[in-house]
Amino acid sequence: MAKENFVEQIADIEKDFPQWYTDVVLKTKLVDYGPVKGTMVIRPYGYAIWENIQRELDVRFKATGHENAYFPLLIPMSYFTKEAEHVEGFAPEVAVVTHAGGEELAEPLAIRPTSETIFGNMYSKWLQSYRDLPIMINQWANVMRWEKTTRPFLRTSEFLWQEGHTAHSTEEEAMDETMKMLGVYKEFAENCLAIPVITGKKTEKEKFAGAVATFGMEAMMKDGKSLQAGTSHYLGQKFAKAFEIKYLDKDGAQKYAYTTSWGVSTRLIGALIMAHGDGRGLVLPPKVAPLQVVIVPIAAKKGNVMEVCADLEAKLTAVGVRVKLDATDNSPGWKFNEWEMKGVPLRIELGPRDIEEGKALIFRRDTLEKSAYALDGLAEQIKALLDTVQKEMLEAARKLRDGRIICADDLKGVLNGVEGGNFVKAGWCGCRECEDKIKAETAATARVIADGETRDKCAVCGKKAESVVYYARAY
Amino acid sequence: MAKENFVEQIADIEKDFPQWYTDVVLKTKLVDYGPVKGTMVIRPYGYAIWENIQRELDVRFKATGHENAYFPLLIPMSYFTKEAEHVEGFAPEVAVVTHAGGEELAEPLAIRPTSETIFGNMYSKWLQSYRDLPIMINQWANVMRWEKTTRPFLRTSEFLWQEGHTAHSTEEEAMDETMKMLGVYKEFAENCLAIPVITGKKTEKEKFAGAVATFGMEAMMKDGKSLQAGTSHYLGQKFAKAFEIKYLDKDGAQKYAYTTSWGVSTRLIGALIMAHGDGRGLVLPPKVAPLQVVIVPIAAKKGNVMEVCADLEAKLTAVGVRVKLDATDNSPGWKFNEWEMKGVPLRIELGPRDIEEGKALIFRRDTLEKSAYALDGLAEQIKALLDTVQKEMLEAARKLRDGRIICADDLKGVLNGVEGGNFVKAGWCGCRECEDKIKAETAATARVIADGETRDKCAVCGKKAESVVYYARAY
Repeated sequence: MAKENFVEQIADIEKDFPQWYTDVVLKTKLVDYGPVKGTMVIRPYGYAIWENIQRELDVRFKATGHENAYFPLLIPMSYFTKEAEHVEGFAPEVAVVTHAGGEELAEPLAIRPTSETIFGNMYSKWLQSYRDLPIMINQWANVMRWEKTTRPFLRTSEFLWQEGHTAHSTEEEAMDETMKMLGVYKEFAENCLAIPVITGKKTEKEKFAGAVATFGMEAMMKDGKSLQAGTSHYLGQKFAKAFEIKYLDKDGAQKYAYTTSWGVSTRLIGALIMAHGDGRGLVLPPKVAPLQVVIVPIAAKKGNVMEVCADLEAKLTAVGVRVKLDATDNSPGWKFNEWEMKGVPLRIELGPRDIEEGKALIFRRDTLEKSAYALDGLAEQIKALLDTVQKEMLEAARKLRDGRIICADDLKGVLNGVEGGNFVKAGWCGCRECEDKIKAETAATARVIADGETRDKCAVCGKKAESVVYYARAY
Repeated sequence: MAKENFVEQIADIEKDFPQWYTDVVLKTKLVDYGPVKGTMVIRPYGYAIWENIQRELDVRFKATGHENAYFPLLIPMSYFTKEAEHVEGFAPEVAVVTHAGGEELAEPLAIRPTSETIFGNMYSKWLQSYRDLPIMINQWANVMRWEKTTRPFLRTSEFLWQEGHTAHSTEEEAMDETMKMLGVYKEFAENCLAIPVITGKKTEKEKFAGAVATFGMEAMMKDGKSLQAGTSHYLGQKFAKAFEIKYLDKDGAQKYAYTTSWGVSTRLIGALIMAHGDGRGLVLPPKVAPLQVVIVPIAAKKGNVMEVCADLEAKLTAVGVRVKLDATDNSPGWKFNEWEMKGVPLRIELGPRDIEEGKALIFRRDTLEKSAYALDGLAEQIKALLDTVQKEMLEAARKLRDGRIICADDLKGVLNGVEGGNFVKAGWCGCRECEDKIKAETAATARVIADGETRDKCAVCGKKAESVVYYARAY
């Protein structure tokens, strides 16, 4: 009965994936719509995921030599015009402050859509000598891009992210940094989010406005579409020249630095939902799940059930597991549905008979399997099981994705492939026209260029292929 | 020589405290000015302090039952007009977005100066039944208040803070929350920042725009001025009525909730600087210092000096101490000055003779004392010493402050007191006129009402005193 009630709550994932997504994000209280169109309120359950993402990434950023800082939200509009491609890419999306303190401002101010310009401005001030290099700073911040069509986490006017901005003395070092951070993102996505990603260079059309080269990581969602989950940009000397980021080198000459930038955002929460979710709702990997284990007492008022449950909760907390004992008056069935929808990786069911037999039933959210475990030493078993879930969720996602990567030789093959919910690898001659044609005819875009792969012919024009491209429809 | 060079770098703290402050914040690279007037860039050394403050506070917020979330930056201007006092207080300081995405907006949007209105709007949506109460949410965010006169950390257009917003079913519970969070702030200020604070109720004039009552904590700076270091507001049903934050109670009646809000900001970094700093620069308490220990090798190229230093660095890191081995080519004297200016609590000096004798010299930044410690078991000794420094910094600050709290019976006494760099306790009849007169004649303001203290007469009008007020000049 309760289960039936529940199933009505969210749309069928097979029949209406977009509605399923909307239902899941709202009904699990990850997020709500803000009063201003296109804005979102990240609610505690959603924000707890973001805190876990931040903690995991922040450790990695610091281990790779970066420091955190905070740069101003407001950027003079004139800064954007200093780098021609950058202004073209971002000016249409900017929110503008024209009045403040009761007066009209002399110069309108942009709310940062990204901060290359203001980092550039400050780096030019701070950088004097080659001894000051490299500069490696990250910031955790809100940014704003005024989008016409918005969806919670995936595309909103305001979102949260981190943006790393570094300056180096050589092209090689800057390119190493670009690739290193792409690697950090990939390792994080796979080991923490349990999402396998394809990394590679973006085409000229898809690169960041103002970059020399953009490298992205693409994740497959359950509907076969791709989600760009992070990008790392090699900016060459473009911003250095626009903002006079230069220094006195050992040889006495003034030289421009080489810069990079890289970022991931609250979009990753959208990726988590759509890479792992199922008909019952969220399926969260243990490393970033707000709650890793929920304990549901069965026949809670009988004997020492609550006592044993509370004892187990304390033991799990003591070994560092994020656990909650659901001691509310709701029925066990209601609780099962609720915590399944919320994607808690493990559920422990404990009733009088279990206690008598010295065991507990453990339900795995990812596989939907239930097994009995001895109560004795359960906390350590749970810890190990969480590691297993984490690992197997990645394996399952990888298997699913790998089964949905196909190759195509022509436009029709690309179209059929993406309509079937696949990523399609196809040859590309390298010209913009063929890339545009793919988009026009298949609604798929070039996600990344496959590293080191070759094919004979461009799937569009049939000319010699320069590279192999992953095409997919994308969020 | 080096020391003389250094002394020239920052203004004399005794002669020009404001310039000393500016010199210290800029030269220790805590902060820099942003390109837009009144904005600041919080540089890595400053931001690391903020990260430590965040970590310490966040644990306390969660331990008291709060969850983090993130609410939108932009608030419809019309929201502010819903609470009459609130709009009067904040409208003059608001920065306004009028254009976005290339178009003029139908309604101008305010960049949040504080978020009671948007929390109120969402709480009214989320709150249905008494079962949903209490709602206890905190957010870490940037806010903007367009100020005419700005100073880094103390008063800037944009700053970082946390704002807690809670809703409760009874007045008593909401007032308990208000006082509990004031207590959390006080405990944190004393035990982490080593700053003794005076807490108490604000006068009507000084309370938060829209609050029923504001409680603040005031810290004494080295120049005898007060800095409001945190506030906790009891909002009664004022915002609940303005935003329809109501619920169906057990008895079947619709009732308005009682709400609170409380916040501290990057201002606390300004408090740290001015409560502990001295002629050499910053003096940071270990709990929030980015670096707790710096190791300076003496005659670094001789024998195994660097090896022993690196070994010690590893040992300190292993026991959780934030330590840096300064292996640069600068002279020891230069390093001493540099790290003293930056306020690192402990410096370890290690040279060939020290190693021979199995000892190290430890310099305490707070007391400027140097002592020899055995190298054997040094890591544990250092940990204990950091605790001692933390404790003794609070004691020293408390002693300094307590020696500068005086009582006065009349206006002249208040004037003399604050001119001498004191906090002055004086009787107050409770009327606004007398409060205004104090400000007009002494440039001091009522900081907080002293809890439970009594005096006979108002220092201004001589009528019966209703309460005792702490008066001080304030940042």
